[in-house]
Amino acid sequence: VIEIHPVRGLPALRPGDDLAAILRAAAGLRDGDVLVVAQKAVSKVEGREVSLAGVEPRPEAVEIAGADADPRVVEIVLREARRIVRRRGSLVIAETRHGFICAAAGVDRSNASGADRAILLPEDPDASAARLRAALGSDVAVVISDSFGRPFRQGITGVAVGCAGLEPLISHIGLPDDRGRPFEATVVHVADELAAAADLVIGPSGGVPAAVIRGYRWQPGAVGAADTVMPPERDLFS
Amino acid sequence: VIEIHPVRGLPALRPGDDLAAILRAAAGLRDGDVLVVAQKAVSKVEGREVSLAGVEPRPEAVEIAGADADPRVVEIVLREARRIVRRRGSLVIAETRHGFICAAAGVDRSNASGADRAILLPEDPDASAARLRAALGSDVAVVISDSFGRPFRQGITGVAVGCAGLEPLISHIGLPDDRGRPFEATVVHVADELAAAADLVIGPSGGVPAAVIRGYRWQPGAVGAADTVMPPERDLFS
Repeated sequence: VIEIHPVRGLPALRPGDDLAAILRAAAGLRDGDVLVVAQKAVSKVEGREVSLAGVEPRPEAVEIAGADADPRVVEIVLREARRIVRRRGSLVIAETRHGFICAAAGVDRSNASGADRAILLPEDPDASAARLRAALGSDVAVVISDSFGRPFRQGITGVAVGCAGLEPLISHIGLPDDRGRPFEATVVHVADELAAAADLVIGPSGGVPAAVIRGYRWQPGAVGAADTVMPPERDLFS
Repeated sequence: VIEIHPVRGLPALRPGDDLAAILRAAAGLRDGDVLVVAQKAVSKVEGREVSLAGVEPRPEAVEIAGADADPRVVEIVLREARRIVRRRGSLVIAETRHGFICAAAGVDRSNASGADRAILLPEDPDASAARLRAALGSDVAVVISDSFGRPFRQGITGVAVGCAGLEPLISHIGLPDDRGRPFEATVVHVADELAAAADLVIGPSGGVPAAVIRGYRWQPGAVGAADTVMPPERDLFS
């Protein structure tokens, strides 16, 4: 049995806060757990929340924003984006510095600590996960999650934007199926599945910024979430 | 707390088997649970496993198969596909009759009941889920899951190809975030998140064909998984 425990009761997070200490106190971690932390919690303590005041949108940002978006937010999206992959009106699907392809390059105003503020993805979520893991002091795996939309399917789902301690991709290639036939191509992104599972308790409202997943036997590994981006030679869609 | 229980000990499934009775006996369902069933279990009892013997590949199937795929499997993929969305060598990303965009139109040889056989998606997985739900006799939601690859990210994750009883898409638009600011665009595909969570215990090997998710408060609804496909006017990628 796998259990998903919400982590509640965290204080409002500020830049420089010791998130590991806060989570250690709130989460009741045990060796073998997976701690899934919402990206926004990590970004807040890392100072990756920005004020829109004083942001000067470039002409392109004004044009993209049109009548229904804030050109200052679009300006921040353009600063965060390595490239724009698709656009429909003010909806920008962009590739981030990490290689993730997602709406608004991961920039979001929800759950920001003030009306005129926006939260960006951590600079290096895999490094953030590794630092958290080291500071937690238990043998836990850490996943930093966000919610991304997907091509072809409506709605967002939890995905791993950072991870540490566990192998995010589990290959079954060559292993036998139920009838002994070896799998030809099956690689499962378990870090994304853990992030999606955790999102069932984390939700978008911000009140539950983390979850503990207990009973999932993760495989130790040193690969980050950024390493699981589709490489260009296998990318058929961007 | 949400619990994910693997459902084990099912017999080998054959066309015409009473899957609801088999699952009812094995799963220990309680009102409020979500029962996630692997698509292959449903397809097997619905006779959606086919023999490759006697399949005559059309010239296009032979050409696509090339040296590294079985042209008979490609022929079946072409029969299942409404259209080919992308192709790289023998890898075909196709739109299925249901509107899903996935590798090989959902056709897979893994866990088939013989070497020269392949499993297709159910004809109408939402109807399959509704029939299962009605026959289970408890107030459970049913999700039929498969594992799909995704653009931009390596690896496959569990997704809902069918559902019944629950609302697959939960909209937070207009609801307040942590600071009272209304969400502008947040809709969560919880059926996909439930399928991904269940996949942590179902896995690809076939030995665990279903999972019970307990403690997740799903919202009753009558929308199917096929209804959650991205509509053409919002599809930026296919």
